[in-house]
Amino acid sequence: MFVTFEGIDACGKSTQYNLFVNMLKEKKMPFIFVREPGGTKAGEDIRKILLHNDYYLSYKTEVLLFVASRAQITKNVIEPALNKGMMVVADRFMDSSVAYQGYGRELGSDAVKSLNNFAVGNCRPDITYFIDITVDEAFRRMKLSKKNDKIELEGKDFFQRVRDGYFELLREEKKRFIYIDGMKSANEVFDQIKEVFFRKYV
Amino acid sequence: MFVTFEGIDACGKSTQYNLFVNMLKEKKMPFIFVREPGGTKAGEDIRKILLHNDYYLSYKTEVLLFVASRAQITKNVIEPALNKGMMVVADRFMDSSVAYQGYGRELGSDAVKSLNNFAVGNCRPDITYFIDITVDEAFRRMKLSKKNDKIELEGKDFFQRVRDGYFELLREEKKRFIYIDGMKSANEVFDQIKEVFFRKYV
Repeated sequence: MFVTFEGIDACGKSTQYNLFVNMLKEKKMPFIFVREPGGTKAGEDIRKILLHNDYYLSYKTEVLLFVASRAQITKNVIEPALNKGMMVVADRFMDSSVAYQGYGRELGSDAVKSLNNFAVGNCRPDITYFIDITVDEAFRRMKLSKKNDKIELEGKDFFQRVRDGYFELLREEKKRFIYIDGMKSANEVFDQIKEVFFRKYV
Repeated sequence: MFVTFEGIDACGKSTQYNLFVNMLKEKKMPFIFVREPGGTKAGEDIRKILLHNDYYLSYKTEVLLFVASRAQITKNVIEPALNKGMMVVADRFMDSSVAYQGYGRELGSDAVKSLNNFAVGNCRPDITYFIDITVDEAFRRMKLSKKNDKIELEGKDFFQRVRDGYFELLREEKKRFIYIDGMKSANEVFDQIKEVFFRKYV
């Protein structure tokens, strides 16, 4: 089974992802976890380009690099693990590109989906947790954690488009996408995640 | 005007490209020349990943990296030059990905064309010189110049598919693609290139 965590910045995604991974460890379920970009040697080198501050990447170059890293980790890490019957847990995957680059950067969701389709082939998540918070709440949390650089870089309109993009995916992929209310406490959010996981998929 | 040079390895493409560039210099025509991958800071970093020997890149990752570098050089170098009325001359461009990755690596020409379309938008070459030699001749030349690594790496079937791919593009893009017989001497090949250039485009 392939489980991914999605949502806008500061939605609590990484906290929930870690709680989920710890739960799998406790239950001794065989799994690997991956985080994009990176996770392979080529992916780490691609990540360095994406985080580079010395030059400006065009939006198209940016999404193509994310997708290149995704093709590599899918082929070399995710597919082999799934074929061995292991669970794969990912902090962000293909939907992040659709939401951030397709909607946020306005490259178009169809264009980005078609890049994703090329990169991952038939390797799709079985469950995608979309942890949703409002953009105001995201900004409040980012200010608290001193992530002002991110706020200044993008602005509320950008994050609103990203959030709208996730809602669009939620409408399109009713079976795979699971809406999680991220405005609640971390424990309450995790209760929602566990409930869905044990009811529907175990 | 945007001019590209294409063909299988050892077809004499770089020789002809240099003769063409020298001719433009002599005629004092304003131009820039580009070579992929690379040509931008991000492109140079992408090139390093493509040439890396420490890990194996999946074919999809490979083509996505070529296309990422192409998106960057198109947006930051080629389009600005064309907008200033300069000529752009490229040693390989989008057609190389279709021939090498689409046909040679068998990723499919439609898939690679659609990646190219995303990356370059409306920025298409006006003339593409396809310098054609047989695969046997390519192997003879590569052996002469001690490029045995390339021969061992790919084999004749690969290069035959690449050449077939170029012929397919020649059939599809009758206006843009110019067939050049690369089996003749360098001077005779360049005469064909000049003749087309001055008759049709200057």
